[in-house]
Amino acid sequence: MQPSDSEDELDTPDGPGSSHIPPTIYVIKFHPSTAREAIEWLIERIEAKNKYGGAELLVRCEPQKQSQGVTMHVSATKIKLLEVAEAVELQKRAASGLIQEFSVRDLDQFLYSGQTLDTVLTPGEREFCVRHELDSLRAKQEEGHVPGYPGIKLYPGQPLLSVYLEEQLITDLFPLHDRQVLENLASDWYKAIFQGAPLDRIRNYFGESVAMYFSFLGFYTLALTLPAAFGVAQLFLSVDTLTEYALFAAFNLVWVTVLLELWKRRCAGLAYSWGTLQHHQNLQATRPGFKGKMTQHPITGRFEPAYPEWKTRSKLYMVSAPAVGVCVVGALWVMVAAFWAEEQLIDWKRSYGSVAGIFTHVPSAFYACLVWLMNYYYRRLATLLTDWENHRTQEAYEWHRVAKLVVFEFVNNFSSLFYIAFYIQDMDMLCSQVATMLIVTQMINHFQEALLPYVVKRAYNQFAEEVLGHLKQHPLTAHLFEEQVKVVHGAPPEEEGITVLALDPKDPRIVQAKEEGDLDPYLDCYEDYLEMFLQFGYVFLFSSVYPMAAFWAVLNNILELKTDAFKLCRVFRRPRVKKVASIGVWQGAFELLGAVAVMTNCALLCLSPRVRPLAPSASGVEWVLIFVFLEHVILAVKMTLMWVVPGKPQWVRLALEKVAYQAKLALKNERGKEDTPPLVPPVQECARNATFRVTLQGHHSRSSERQLTSPFATQRGVQRLLVAPR
Amino acid sequence: MQPSDSEDELDTPDGPGSSHIPPTIYVIKFHPSTAREAIEWLIERIEAKNKYGGAELLVRCEPQKQSQGVTMHVSATKIKLLEVAEAVELQKRAASGLIQEFSVRDLDQFLYSGQTLDTVLTPGEREFCVRHELDSLRAKQEEGHVPGYPGIKLYPGQPLLSVYLEEQLITDLFPLHDRQVLENLASDWYKAIFQGAPLDRIRNYFGESVAMYFSFLGFYTLALTLPAAFGVAQLFLSVDTLTEYALFAAFNLVWVTVLLELWKRRCAGLAYSWGTLQHHQNLQATRPGFKGKMTQHPITGRFEPAYPEWKTRSKLYMVSAPAVGVCVVGALWVMVAAFWAEEQLIDWKRSYGSVAGIFTHVPSAFYACLVWLMNYYYRRLATLLTDWENHRTQEAYEWHRVAKLVVFEFVNNFSSLFYIAFYIQDMDMLCSQVATMLIVTQMINHFQEALLPYVVKRAYNQFAEEVLGHLKQHPLTAHLFEEQVKVVHGAPPEEEGITVLALDPKDPRIVQAKEEGDLDPYLDCYEDYLEMFLQFGYVFLFSSVYPMAAFWAVLNNILELKTDAFKLCRVFRRPRVKKVASIGVWQGAFELLGAVAVMTNCALLCLSPRVRPLAPSASGVEWVLIFVFLEHVILAVKMTLMWVVPGKPQWVRLALEKVAYQAKLALKNERGKEDTPPLVPPVQECARNATFRVTLQGHHSRSSERQLTSPFATQRGVQRLLVAPR
Repeated sequence: MQPSDSEDELDTPDGPGSSHIPPTIYVIKFHPSTAREAIEWLIERIEAKNKYGGAELLVRCEPQKQSQGVTMHVSATKIKLLEVAEAVELQKRAASGLIQEFSVRDLDQFLYSGQTLDTVLTPGEREFCVRHELDSLRAKQEEGHVPGYPGIKLYPGQPLLSVYLEEQLITDLFPLHDRQVLENLASDWYKAIFQGAPLDRIRNYFGESVAMYFSFLGFYTLALTLPAAFGVAQLFLSVDTLTEYALFAAFNLVWVTVLLELWKRRCAGLAYSWGTLQHHQNLQATRPGFKGKMTQHPITGRFEPAYPEWKTRSKLYMVSAPAVGVCVVGALWVMVAAFWAEEQLIDWKRSYGSVAGIFTHVPSAFYACLVWLMNYYYRRLATLLTDWENHRTQEAYEWHRVAKLVVFEFVNNFSSLFYIAFYIQDMDMLCSQVATMLIVTQMINHFQEALLPYVVKRAYNQFAEEVLGHLKQHPLTAHLFEEQVKVVHGAPPEEEGITVLALDPKDPRIVQAKEEGDLDPYLDCYEDYLEMFLQFGYVFLFSSVYPMAAFWAVLNNILELKTDAFKLCRVFRRPRVKKVASIGVWQGAFELLGAVAVMTNCALLCLSPRVRPLAPSASGVEWVLIFVFLEHVILAVKMTLMWVVPGKPQWVRLALEKVAYQAKLALKNERGKEDTPPLVPPVQECARNATFRVTLQGHHSRSSERQLTSPFATQRGVQRLLVAPR
Repeated sequence: MQPSDSEDELDTPDGPGSSHIPPTIYVIKFHPSTAREAIEWLIERIEAKNKYGGAELLVRCEPQKQSQGVTMHVSATKIKLLEVAEAVELQKRAASGLIQEFSVRDLDQFLYSGQTLDTVLTPGEREFCVRHELDSLRAKQEEGHVPGYPGIKLYPGQPLLSVYLEEQLITDLFPLHDRQVLENLASDWYKAIFQGAPLDRIRNYFGESVAMYFSFLGFYTLALTLPAAFGVAQLFLSVDTLTEYALFAAFNLVWVTVLLELWKRRCAGLAYSWGTLQHHQNLQATRPGFKGKMTQHPITGRFEPAYPEWKTRSKLYMVSAPAVGVCVVGALWVMVAAFWAEEQLIDWKRSYGSVAGIFTHVPSAFYACLVWLMNYYYRRLATLLTDWENHRTQEAYEWHRVAKLVVFEFVNNFSSLFYIAFYIQDMDMLCSQVATMLIVTQMINHFQEALLPYVVKRAYNQFAEEVLGHLKQHPLTAHLFEEQVKVVHGAPPEEEGITVLALDPKDPRIVQAKEEGDLDPYLDCYEDYLEMFLQFGYVFLFSSVYPMAAFWAVLNNILELKTDAFKLCRVFRRPRVKKVASIGVWQGAFELLGAVAVMTNCALLCLSPRVRPLAPSASGVEWVLIFVFLEHVILAVKMTLMWVVPGKPQWVRLALEKVAYQAKLALKNERGKEDTPPLVPPVQECARNATFRVTLQGHHSRSSERQLTSPFATQRGVQRLLVAPR
């Protein structure tokens, strides 16, 4: 973070003509061929006052080089940020200890314990505020198309930045790291091997969704140590009786519920202290991609795009759900076909010898490719369907998109294991498959996702810098590096620079923007959660067959905690802040997987060749009924636990109720003030109290004991009715 | 309802010395031997001002006859009632259409559509308010015992009326009917055979709990017609294939969930419009029997008895739950023993002939007696345990008490059927048992609970009046009727009357109080719900074996709707109003029974001798697995439905959010006002606006678009920080 500016700089940069602006928060890169009018129009809108539909942000462009697109740095004054923070109803901890909406008027309350105007908003909140302003730039009624592009139509209320991004007028839009804060955070996080994650600081910098992920990962790993210990213990203890088998299985399965319930409580606690718990579904901001008629919101009275909920629901149930169903069935069919082909080939190998043997692994390889392809196209379908469903809030949108993906991923990842377990019924094959998936696949993942890209990119960059720099300067190759820019919309790149102030060419932000622009964007935590979800599946779905799974998972997660931190700090661009109150759809997905695990484990025990001989006298039907009974009991225990454990800790409930109670009183107070026409003309206002003391003497109102409805007012209401009965 | 009094009578009765008081709302009967000091002390407290710990109610006693206890009529002025309505935070529909807290200050808002000061509170609400005042009479610090009874100790904060009732100083305490309103209601309700229940009027008179019961009964009966139609259809259609059997069973079982989910929505709608949905758990009034240290409430700041929640929870889990478990196991054991004894006797009959045959039915008869006894003692145990658990709110108390009772009733009523179905596996016996229970038992119930007591009581009263009147006057028997009063606390009945104003001896309320005092009290809807619960069980637990059950249930319920109405209007005393937002524990009980029904029906189909031959080729294990699969599918469908259907209708959610949003804005507004110290001395107040327009010109705040946080205030906050940075 930059040191606090001196007093006179607080509100504005060094005058309107200065190249100095507060730290860059967003970088916008235009396509080299984007028309000058379009760029200037957008800049104008970004800089314009709110009342003219602008965002009131500060913009400086980088000194332009020929044939390169315009790169803009967007920033904001401190006071603008505070105003936006109020407008987006940011929830922050006040001096009273309660979380309440940030308000500039009550700024005092938030400037406790040495906070200054600079630090009162965290880096994440500043990013959130600037992006909110950028996102709320919308087309006005009279703006029919993007200037310079008559072909790009705009409808009133359409978010401008989405249009620019969709039409590739803007090629890149990302927040810039605050390097100093990042370095401090990194040194206490992934560099401190034996420390837990500094959650609040992660939240302050990366936002709630990232912090929530790390919190969940840590919590889950901790909870996993118990099943891991049991798993290791099972290697040394002899599990010989049916009861022991059942108890071990039941313990793991019930533990899952305990874990998830405790997490829900912890999550509510975190969300409360991060101020995201009180965000109200219906009052949340409309997401940029939402399409609807501009109508007055029934609650807030503001004009907002609206779309009937029943349409979204019908689309969901009539089209999306069946489509997902068809895809799932398709994926299952492909899986079965692959197994069938492999069997066929093994048969042929027996008949025709080694010639057919060469092809034995073709189906698996082919299947692997097909899964990759299916996943790719399914993701696009899921995004398309969810877009089309037109959910109003970002939260609902992501919930529905991720839900679709999770279903498919579940089928793709676990269906073959189910096939092996319950159709082929080969427990050893199942064991080895689960072990492979857990140990090999997950471990490799770390390198693939975090270390490899980092190392490769560094090496590549060094190579590119050295070699290309050399080539560019060499007279024989220099011409190769001139004008390779693709022309997208046919408009030739403007020769003259656009009319906006430029940054000092030596400003370090220019280099930083270039470096971070080369990194991959970190879209969301989906991949990270998915990894945990699959691991959770491998560990618990088949825990009664392969109890060591939990142990490997714990090892993996300890590594994961650090590689994910490294990934966020070093490998990816600064992520956008997402305000979340929970892990969203994943909570339900984990819970559902926990319930499915009860069924699979009971079925596996029932089928297991090691367990069956323990009750040789039981008939087949009896044997099945034992496990059906066991399953019902475990499920019942899980349901009871879920129902008994309150979803929010007591202190959170109390805090929420306290605010609700205060709000109720305030509302009552306000209603009273608004609705009561004065009984006496305003000039007599001051004498009113005395007057009524006389007229109503001896009539002691009960409400006089209470805080906010003054006895005076109560009596006034009664008096009015007595004086003028209807 | 009494016609509106003339203007000058509005506030008080005809002066402090008059015997005329507004309509009696409560009747309190003291024991004939209660000490005069105790009576007078209580009366004094009831009449005293709030600030002296009184209830500010009006009291008149009936003209005293020797050797009879004192009977008091309690009433309240209209304005007192309105004030109490505000103090208890009664929720009422305001002119805006929203439900909001009643407030005397905003009385205008509630006096729409021809409402007057007399009708703005419903009879039920008036009863509720008076009882609230009576219940909140609590012992003060300096009052160590009840006057006249040094043995009856009081602790500070102990509710006085409970003490008087417990110690039998008060023998009776009941609300008096408002005969005119009751007659109007009755003629549109049970006398109008082909009309639905006038729910809102029932609610206005009998309160929310009774109205909720009738609403549920009607809704449930309507929903039951579909399974009934299917049941009848099954008589004529031939259900021959396994799929058909499965479909019929699945339909019924899923329908249960649909019914219960739709009910939940309807219930939320009703509760909203009755103003009970917004009652907040933590802010609810403490119930009279609650024991705890007087401490400051963490939210409201008022002094209230408090008891740590963890203690209640530990008592619940450590003692109550195991105790209930033991009782259930005991009841099961008794049931099995009865069956075993009967079998033994049948065996003996075979061996020893008719001598033993006489005793065949002894076990059943003995079992029936034992069940009755067990039920009796279990109820006392349940009440005792729940008292001891010490729940703070009436709602929680009743929830836990009823939950304990329901578990036991379930076991007592259904365990023998389960035994027949799954141990003896005699489907015909099961059918006939269910039919008997449904048709005979339930039909008889109507007469037992409603008509019989009414007829008997009437006949008895007539007899008593005629015969006893005759005997009393006859010189030979007259002395038998003198002084038969039991002396409870040893204090002789006072000769002189107590010093409180008496009613006019010809006041019709005296006769009314006598008549209604002779009726039985209607404690709660427990018995009525229990009847429905048992019926629901008979219908759905065994629907695949006896599909006609639903038909009989519908017939029964149509009758029930009317007999219950008759019962409330004629047979019982006026019930106390209970404010409920749902059917409480019964919702969960019905849902749970619905889930159990899935298991029993699948098991019954699996066992049924009619279904088994439909798949002769299936092995035993396969056959079982078919039904396990069916069960899982139906349960999954039910769970999905429960999860997909929102618990509250959209309009209710919107209305609640609207109020929450308004409250939030009001709170924000208020916080701003409270916390900001004025920047300028108060005398300059008026010039402030202009001043700031100048200093902050050109700086247009974003919040200027919003309603309640004025831009002026926002700028003020910023300005303050600019002027005096920290």
